[in-house]
Amino acid sequence: MSSIDLKQFSLTIRVQYPHESTYLGDMVQVIECYGGEISVVEHVVETAEHITKDIVFKLDDSTARKLIEKNTLQLTGGTVMKIMDEVMKMHVGGKLETGLKNPIRSMEDLSKVYTPGVAKVCQAIAADQDKAYEYTIKKNSVAVVSDGTAVLGLGDIGPKAAMPVMEGKAVLFKQFADVDAFPICLDTKDTEEIIAIVKAIAPTFGGINLEDISSPRCFEIEARLKQELDIPVFHDDQHGTAIVVLAGILNALRVCRKDIKNVKIVVNGIGAAGIAVSKMLLHAGAVNLIGVDRQGAINRAVHYDKPHWSEFALITNPHLEMGSLSEVIQGADVFIGLSAPGALKLGDVKRMAADPIVFAMANPTPEIDPEIAGPYVKVMATGRSDFPNQINNVLCFPGIFRGALDCGATEINEDMKLAAAEAISSVIDVSDLHETYIMPNAFDPRVVERIREAVIRAALKSGVARIGALMETN
Amino acid sequence: MSSIDLKQFSLTIRVQYPHESTYLGDMVQVIECYGGEISVVEHVVETAEHITKDIVFKLDDSTARKLIEKNTLQLTGGTVMKIMDEVMKMHVGGKLETGLKNPIRSMEDLSKVYTPGVAKVCQAIAADQDKAYEYTIKKNSVAVVSDGTAVLGLGDIGPKAAMPVMEGKAVLFKQFADVDAFPICLDTKDTEEIIAIVKAIAPTFGGINLEDISSPRCFEIEARLKQELDIPVFHDDQHGTAIVVLAGILNALRVCRKDIKNVKIVVNGIGAAGIAVSKMLLHAGAVNLIGVDRQGAINRAVHYDKPHWSEFALITNPHLEMGSLSEVIQGADVFIGLSAPGALKLGDVKRMAADPIVFAMANPTPEIDPEIAGPYVKVMATGRSDFPNQINNVLCFPGIFRGALDCGATEINEDMKLAAAEAISSVIDVSDLHETYIMPNAFDPRVVERIREAVIRAALKSGVARIGALMETN
Repeated sequence: MSSIDLKQFSLTIRVQYPHESTYLGDMVQVIECYGGEISVVEHVVETAEHITKDIVFKLDDSTARKLIEKNTLQLTGGTVMKIMDEVMKMHVGGKLETGLKNPIRSMEDLSKVYTPGVAKVCQAIAADQDKAYEYTIKKNSVAVVSDGTAVLGLGDIGPKAAMPVMEGKAVLFKQFADVDAFPICLDTKDTEEIIAIVKAIAPTFGGINLEDISSPRCFEIEARLKQELDIPVFHDDQHGTAIVVLAGILNALRVCRKDIKNVKIVVNGIGAAGIAVSKMLLHAGAVNLIGVDRQGAINRAVHYDKPHWSEFALITNPHLEMGSLSEVIQGADVFIGLSAPGALKLGDVKRMAADPIVFAMANPTPEIDPEIAGPYVKVMATGRSDFPNQINNVLCFPGIFRGALDCGATEINEDMKLAAAEAISSVIDVSDLHETYIMPNAFDPRVVERIREAVIRAALKSGVARIGALMETN
Repeated sequence: MSSIDLKQFSLTIRVQYPHESTYLGDMVQVIECYGGEISVVEHVVETAEHITKDIVFKLDDSTARKLIEKNTLQLTGGTVMKIMDEVMKMHVGGKLETGLKNPIRSMEDLSKVYTPGVAKVCQAIAADQDKAYEYTIKKNSVAVVSDGTAVLGLGDIGPKAAMPVMEGKAVLFKQFADVDAFPICLDTKDTEEIIAIVKAIAPTFGGINLEDISSPRCFEIEARLKQELDIPVFHDDQHGTAIVVLAGILNALRVCRKDIKNVKIVVNGIGAAGIAVSKMLLHAGAVNLIGVDRQGAINRAVHYDKPHWSEFALITNPHLEMGSLSEVIQGADVFIGLSAPGALKLGDVKRMAADPIVFAMANPTPEIDPEIAGPYVKVMATGRSDFPNQINNVLCFPGIFRGALDCGATEINEDMKLAAAEAISSVIDVSDLHETYIMPNAFDPRVVERIREAVIRAALKSGVARIGALMETN
């Protein structure tokens, strides 16, 4: 997994200047003078008064960037309209678009895909609602729904600011699994309203991916939608994370030759993701799992105001351990952090059992610096792409929806999630497993294919697949 | 404008049969025996038990079709899974898909379009909400929203059955104007709920195209959304129709050398479209316009239970004419039908003024048969592609949204609509105008381009364009 090369970067300066001005040449001179290497000068627009161009160049040094910015802003004879780096530029105009499966070339085509021809397709669906899976995008479409309240590590930034993430997710769905996903960012935080909206828009979609909705509303929203809709509803922050973590833990345990049934697991950070990860591990056979939050180990002897903690306490911590993370980490085989930078101390790691497994997934700064913890752990994983063993949700959501859509599943249940986790871990051959290679690369095509097959098999076995849909339309 | 050739048609028979069976050969023999001409045999899927294939063939005669269907169903050794004609086949799997503007090829790309890179794009929008137009799909996206209550001539067929139309509309948006539209079919008929939902999903979109929502709810829904949203809201059944009808009337009047200010216009069928068409004509200068519905001419001397009829009466029928269509049609220059097959009699046409203009737009069967009315009218138009002068909404909605999106318009106002109508009519050079050539072809690229320019100009002039958005991101 390559990291972003932060040494060399690309900048784009958009300039506007009158015709017959030397401004563009002056600008290029300033850029080159500070070591900028011009890649291309792109034409943007030309009016009677002005020419607008983008100057794209590479640069080695962020000091030079500041000097270029300062000097180009001072140049006269034109205007710097904006300065964009590569990341911003990749988002200009959005990342997603729509397309036609078949082009419309003539009035005859038009009369088939639209009126009057389309009427008989409508009538066929009106007579048999399941035909929507056959004659509309429903068979392959997923809504990526967010209210923008818990976006990345940024918190409640609102629906418009959440769009780049949801649109990004939609393009990943397409790139990795050919799923036609569309972002739906909602301008409401009201639980009941969100439930009503998602139910109302469901006729268009074959699945709902909930994303970046803050806790505890995400629990109620997901639970109600699962109950009230007949298409899969999947809160990726919870279940996608849980599946990918389990896949990593399964392989890490193989590397350490430990059995999930016998290990002591400490999960730090009992929010939506922490609870989902814990439940997944229990479903996969874990027994001695202890959840820790700021006030210490969660324990059924204590009364909690948060109902999801009370429920969590009932199914975890069988030996009723108490105390802070530093106390309960004693003798643990596995640490899973979904908490905050610096939450795990080196002393804590040293108190773990032999060959400890540490998943430090706080983003972008892990619970403990992998370079500091490295020498004391057997398997170290993080959420980052610049260290080995990246725990990345993109390993899961494309494949699990691909499988669910292909068998017309009415839900994504526990067995399907477990099957997906096992499928991800199976991509790495046991003989290739290594302490720095427990997670497959997201670009390995076997990831989606294996998840798809495993999920379809589990859906068929658990009776939630509309098999007819699979056979008829494939 | 070509019509659909109904003489020769294409059929697809999907068959499933065990390996090493002669079923496929037998099937081909039956098809050829009745005159079917095999175009291709397509592989669909193969399992351990079965092979599934599509046999596609052409046929001249619908009697032969019945014989083929009967005989192939009787063949043993395999199963006919379905028989699809060309229209149904063009809808299989849906007509729309999503795509990536830039492919994601590496972990580095991934880290730019998704986490961690995307975070700074989110932050930029959080700091300045207008940047959503720059860095997300919002700048180019339209929701095609319907509750499925008034779909084509089919009535209330529900949201799933409405999908082929809304998806069709979305592909037309892309094909004709490169707008990224997405169908949103709603599983509710509640006016307030529809308003709340559209408001809530608005952050994702740059415009809302309402479609096939029944009257009178469509009035309230559109009016409220226009008031409460800062993006264009356009009910195509009303305003798209009105614009295209006006474009046609302007050219028809030119052919007849009549002035809109002086003509007598009778509009038959005062539903949502009839009211919108009438208002548009009045806005364009018409004075003597009379609306007629089943109970006769609408007249401000009468009290109506429907509030939209009372309002309509106030602005129309200046001479307070009364009576049935057959009575008020006396001396009319223009008849516009948005009503029902057969509503206009030949005797009515004969009572019209010299050089009468008849727009008979009931679909698929017009208010009067164009071949019967033909000899007695100067300009005849219908909604059908198999007669000259087709009044087709596809002439308007792609271009009007293209213009509105390109200038970041906050609404589509009366001036923009009028400009769009004039732009459509302007595509036909005055010297080329003819009684059978008043409407441009939908595939003429000048249609979208002229509407776009005219709409942007009108938006700028009426102060509803976000010019900054236009200049910065184009």
